[in-house]
Amino acid sequence: MNDISPDIDPALIDRFAAIVGEKYALRDQQDIAPYLMERRGLWHGRTALVLRPGSVDEVSRIMRLATETGTPVVPQSGNTGLVGAQVPDMSGREIVLSLSRLNRIREIDVLSNTVTVEAGVILQTLQEAADAADRLFPLSLAAQGSCQIGGNLSSNAGGTGVLAYGNARELCLGVEVVLPTGEVFDDLRKLKKDNTGYDLKNLFIGAEGTLGVITAAVLKLFPKPKGREVAFAGLSSPEAALSLFSLAMDRAGAALTAFELIGQRPYDFTLRHAPGVVRPLSGDWPWYVLMQISSGRSAEDARALIEEVLSAGLEQEIVGDAVIAASMAQGDAFWNFREVLPDAQKPEGASIKHDISVPVAAIPQFIERAAGAVQSVSPGAREVCFGHMGDGNLHYNISRPVGGDDEAFLGLYHAMNKAVHDVVRSFHGSISAEHGIGQLKRDELIATAPPMAIELMRRVKTAFDPAGIMNPGKVI
Amino acid sequence: MNDISPDIDPALIDRFAAIVGEKYALRDQQDIAPYLMERRGLWHGRTALVLRPGSVDEVSRIMRLATETGTPVVPQSGNTGLVGAQVPDMSGREIVLSLSRLNRIREIDVLSNTVTVEAGVILQTLQEAADAADRLFPLSLAAQGSCQIGGNLSSNAGGTGVLAYGNARELCLGVEVVLPTGEVFDDLRKLKKDNTGYDLKNLFIGAEGTLGVITAAVLKLFPKPKGREVAFAGLSSPEAALSLFSLAMDRAGAALTAFELIGQRPYDFTLRHAPGVVRPLSGDWPWYVLMQISSGRSAEDARALIEEVLSAGLEQEIVGDAVIAASMAQGDAFWNFREVLPDAQKPEGASIKHDISVPVAAIPQFIERAAGAVQSVSPGAREVCFGHMGDGNLHYNISRPVGGDDEAFLGLYHAMNKAVHDVVRSFHGSISAEHGIGQLKRDELIATAPPMAIELMRRVKTAFDPAGIMNPGKVI
Repeated sequence: MNDISPDIDPALIDRFAAIVGEKYALRDQQDIAPYLMERRGLWHGRTALVLRPGSVDEVSRIMRLATETGTPVVPQSGNTGLVGAQVPDMSGREIVLSLSRLNRIREIDVLSNTVTVEAGVILQTLQEAADAADRLFPLSLAAQGSCQIGGNLSSNAGGTGVLAYGNARELCLGVEVVLPTGEVFDDLRKLKKDNTGYDLKNLFIGAEGTLGVITAAVLKLFPKPKGREVAFAGLSSPEAALSLFSLAMDRAGAALTAFELIGQRPYDFTLRHAPGVVRPLSGDWPWYVLMQISSGRSAEDARALIEEVLSAGLEQEIVGDAVIAASMAQGDAFWNFREVLPDAQKPEGASIKHDISVPVAAIPQFIERAAGAVQSVSPGAREVCFGHMGDGNLHYNISRPVGGDDEAFLGLYHAMNKAVHDVVRSFHGSISAEHGIGQLKRDELIATAPPMAIELMRRVKTAFDPAGIMNPGKVI
Repeated sequence: MNDISPDIDPALIDRFAAIVGEKYALRDQQDIAPYLMERRGLWHGRTALVLRPGSVDEVSRIMRLATETGTPVVPQSGNTGLVGAQVPDMSGREIVLSLSRLNRIREIDVLSNTVTVEAGVILQTLQEAADAADRLFPLSLAAQGSCQIGGNLSSNAGGTGVLAYGNARELCLGVEVVLPTGEVFDDLRKLKKDNTGYDLKNLFIGAEGTLGVITAAVLKLFPKPKGREVAFAGLSSPEAALSLFSLAMDRAGAALTAFELIGQRPYDFTLRHAPGVVRPLSGDWPWYVLMQISSGRSAEDARALIEEVLSAGLEQEIVGDAVIAASMAQGDAFWNFREVLPDAQKPEGASIKHDISVPVAAIPQFIERAAGAVQSVSPGAREVCFGHMGDGNLHYNISRPVGGDDEAFLGLYHAMNKAVHDVVRSFHGSISAEHGIGQLKRDELIATAPPMAIELMRRVKTAFDPAGIMNPGKVI
């Protein structure tokens, strides 16, 4: 961080700065620092300039100048991404384009059930605005207090609401995008049906800022549930969890709004390390499920439905034990238990993480085979398995063996990734279910995806960003 | 049709025929005729050759030869499309590639709730196979007895199930596509979450065969509803229908599986012209709604829910009169009434049709303003307005004035289209909500869409089909 000499012509920096005004053109490395490192500290970068435009027109002028001068641009919103997509490289040649000042909720249309929102709006702010309009915006994830809509869309964010409502892609009806040339692609429409040509919108969603800069979007709103019940269940195996999932889908259908699987190890880590958490179940079980049922009708209805599902599960001997939260507060405590899981793994030493998905029916087999693969790479390593089972998505993290050496274990990073991802690929699964590719998985994607997929992605990239100035080195 | 001299080199025809075998290479114009005209007779084309491959490998070899020889190819499945996308042009240079022999259901995975299906499977066959596996495949449209999955995906089909389950795009998890070069893009995955690069799948869906040939897909299945109730309501205005829709969404949420608006005129036409239909309501109303509620729990539950919605509607004076089908048979009769609407318009003389969408909240205003636009083009013309109100999608058809001249009225085709579509555009709506672009709306799309959208679509087309042999002259 000592070498702060600009790798961009100072005169060019002045031209960029003039677009947004000096106040919003950060050149001081102290001001810039927060934009150069994501919160886990895995990705560092350098830049001489962070621009904070206040309008779509300013974004457009920045991109026009970037194209004219061949300056690479890294778009960034809440800077909570986990794969390094939002961080500049070490060259110093890239500038950072922060969307955080584009933070207006332009319109809430309660009759059409849509909200038109700018890229820099914080997810939780949007959730609260929807709530105030008696609607639900269902995207929900751990970083919601700081992540922003632009990043949620650019990474096609998932989270805990996907089971019933879909991921960010499925919540989006229209986008406004500034292209690398500065031209604006305005597709801010509120339509549920529109078959007028190619689906351009979904190319920009999940492209991690490599095809253009999403500046605003029209998102779907939903009726607010009138009742919500949360339960914790103890089970003997992933097979039992799969049976419970089928049972819950059969009885509750779209009212099943969360189905999270938690292995015994992350459960124990959480009890051991997370301050203030309360043990959800009195007994110990090899596996746990956090289940949520929401009713559009009434609180009583949600209660009756979750009782029906759990009673049937106990009767069919799928469920070993279960407790339904007795209050909203206890329900929130159950969710808190789930949310602190990842952090509770830290005191156990170094870990190697995976964000994978397989077909839902393959989850038990995956867990069995992956454990074998893990042990073959690092005998004694501890599988910390939890995730959104209803979506086939597991956060399959591996902690080093008890008493093992952190650095030695992290030296197995690539071998462990390969072993786990090979099992994923054997089930036609995904090596990045919800976090994206960014810098972290780019090489692996290129090396292991079907060559035809990579070839088509490259053609798309070239077609949309022929000069290669749009977040280079990310995704593809 | 008299000029049947081949416009393709006979030796080349032999080479194509050798790939599929003589039996499946149709050269006789009598055999070919059904492939050259869609059922309404609006689009005619010519070809010297229809190929009916029996495997993905044969499709691949056909496309490889087509690329090698610069032969344009028109993919076709059920030939029920309404915009001419599946019909060759009049040049005689194009060959037709029929997918109908690729008609295997490769796998039903009831635990993952997916089905893997080839392009030539008839929609109704798939619905029945899902039903036999105790699952629901919710795509449903008038042509379901003959349309095929390849066409459903290539046109991103809509229909009556979109409100609760989404259109074809939202039902698709993975695709297998043969590219213009013959290379196979295999993305047949069952994943609900996969953030590994650009969303290529959704480019092929809705591309009407202009980017590649969809040969198979993984589609979502759903739990089969345990109860279904259908009601017919009479209302005073589109505003009242919008209020009823909000009420029904609020009370029933995802259980509201259809909300169809029907104007008095198509209602009367149907009573007058459709053989065997039964009057759903005793009185006459300016507007009608066909509403369906499905319950994953029980028949009683669906009944209680629809009664609750209609009682509240009557109490709030939104609904004038309503009847709930007393039996499955009466429910089917209500649906039949809805399905024969389009045909019941024919005896009233020439008509000019529109397939539009606007934001749901804008439906009442659209209906008012569009009526003014119609009358300004053809005083006395009769608006025949019905459609999937819950999706913001209306089939806004115009019958000629009573006693008017058919040909003179059809002479107003472009003026009428422009007048209605100008109103659609003023609401940021879509001029093709579910039928697509094909040949029918290509010129209008290019002339009226934002130039940036057209430019991006052209770049995609060039990137995927640089030789321009893939269903040329369609969409873009």
